[in-house]
Amino acid sequence: MGEFDLIERFFKRPVQRAALGVGDDCALLQPAPGMQLAVSSDMLVEGRHFLSTVDPRALGHKALAVNLSDLAACGAKPLAFTLALALPAADAAWLEPFSQGLLALADAHGCELVGGDTTRGPLNICITVFGEVPRGLALLRSGAQAGDDIYVSGTVGDARLALEVFRGHLAMPQEVFTQARARMEQPTPRVALGQALRGVATAAVDVSDGLLGDLGHVLKASSLGARIEAPAALGLMGCADAPLSPAQRLEFALAGGDDYELVFTAPPSARGRVKGAVAQAQVQVTRIGSTTAAPGVQVVDAQGQPLDQRFGSFDHFG
Amino acid sequence: MGEFDLIERFFKRPVQRAALGVGDDCALLQPAPGMQLAVSSDMLVEGRHFLSTVDPRALGHKALAVNLSDLAACGAKPLAFTLALALPAADAAWLEPFSQGLLALADAHGCELVGGDTTRGPLNICITVFGEVPRGLALLRSGAQAGDDIYVSGTVGDARLALEVFRGHLAMPQEVFTQARARMEQPTPRVALGQALRGVATAAVDVSDGLLGDLGHVLKASSLGARIEAPAALGLMGCADAPLSPAQRLEFALAGGDDYELVFTAPPSARGRVKGAVAQAQVQVTRIGSTTAAPGVQVVDAQGQPLDQRFGSFDHFG
Repeated sequence: MGEFDLIERFFKRPVQRAALGVGDDCALLQPAPGMQLAVSSDMLVEGRHFLSTVDPRALGHKALAVNLSDLAACGAKPLAFTLALALPAADAAWLEPFSQGLLALADAHGCELVGGDTTRGPLNICITVFGEVPRGLALLRSGAQAGDDIYVSGTVGDARLALEVFRGHLAMPQEVFTQARARMEQPTPRVALGQALRGVATAAVDVSDGLLGDLGHVLKASSLGARIEAPAALGLMGCADAPLSPAQRLEFALAGGDDYELVFTAPPSARGRVKGAVAQAQVQVTRIGSTTAAPGVQVVDAQGQPLDQRFGSFDHFG
Repeated sequence: MGEFDLIERFFKRPVQRAALGVGDDCALLQPAPGMQLAVSSDMLVEGRHFLSTVDPRALGHKALAVNLSDLAACGAKPLAFTLALALPAADAAWLEPFSQGLLALADAHGCELVGGDTTRGPLNICITVFGEVPRGLALLRSGAQAGDDIYVSGTVGDARLALEVFRGHLAMPQEVFTQARARMEQPTPRVALGQALRGVATAAVDVSDGLLGDLGHVLKASSLGARIEAPAALGLMGCADAPLSPAQRLEFALAGGDDYELVFTAPPSARGRVKGAVAQAQVQVTRIGSTTAAPGVQVVDAQGQPLDQRFGSFDHFG
């Protein structure tokens, strides 16, 4: 089967909203008047971002989910994406479920596949996603103010738990592992929350490399520090029944990575509006601390005393 | 060196025209009023699109050039691009010349690096490029009419010649090889020509997989056939002194691939306007035949008799 047959068979569909979709040298996009186009590109490599054991359908989902998560972190509404795919072989048994997982998530967010590239090579998935956001309303990393509350959406740390089980570093009861694995393989991008937080959050980032590491990008861009409350952070994992020590639970929640939740800041005066945005997006959020004018991040216990635990941060070259 | 240091060191520069560049979850782009955004994504894999012996500086050039060539084929003006890079190791001795070659070509076209991703993995370069084109004026593959002239810009077949020498299938004098190798490793995207052909050409495509194969996309999209004149095609190679048989020369020119020239169609009544566009873009073009209402492609000799030579077409899964 040739390259062009492959593309047509699994990925070509009638163009919906894009001016021109798959099948020309370029796709054509037309942002609505007053809108800026938000663009993000993520590459997934076997062994770094997914395991060879992953179900292709889940991988298709995840490849787009991590990109939609970047749009969410900017408060952008998904519009379209391109897919570049290097494959060891043109394998329909792999491509069919992969494309189904990918396109099901795309359809759920009205995000249209408009172009791409297919080539032979070590398995590599590169997606570039496009969204739109009203001019001046994008959520940036640089907008946090000293004294802002810090919030996290959903649950974090579970993907890391699944990874540790896969690596043989931990053993978990089957139901805990199943729950954690679903979080690792099929993350939920917080697209509705990102849009609901426009004009409410002062800064936002999505959690891909670990909560503290990604929060660090906001703090650096905003020239701030932060104080994180360990008791709140201890409740962040979805797998509440996992047999973990408090130190492990805190490490996974604060430095786990691969969660694709949003971390955002908003002033205490906006707590009511945050509550409204959260209700509108039908997502839970947890307030885990606040930003500080003094640099550095402290994780403090219930008495406000700094913990001496150190937290790792995932680095794709670490 | 960590991922983020790498990005900053070699790729982060002050934002020019994009609303927001490298360093947030998304880049923000704002097409000018009345403009559509043209988007294309190409992935380059070692062994398929470049050889391990390539100079990183040339590779940086080529990785962007093949994407700019897609914009050229749509008549779009380059604006910005994202770069996703998988590398076996974070190697400054490779990254520095790679980024120099990449950014030199980007600067020459006013095309700004606005975001991307870096990860460890088998060497893979995925660029998504953004351009703008006045609404309704993009050059599409589907616009050719029966009886249109078919043109090719610049020279084609030389990249294939270099590849055959690298593969040990051919021996060439050093000066021929040097010339051919430059064409393979540092193609020139025909960005100015693409823009000059807006409203003049009826259809266009860039030559990546071989002239006849890529022309075939135009013919299929436009429901046409074509008649190609072998005497004209024989003059398409830049390496005029290469010791090749006429059959080899024709094969390389018509099915070589990796040329990144433009193939376009325009009615005979537009020959004067084509001449004007070509002069404006300071590129040579060759008229090599015409489209036909009857399907299929014939390559004919000086007497109008069909050749019985068959031409291959490069397929990334072939």
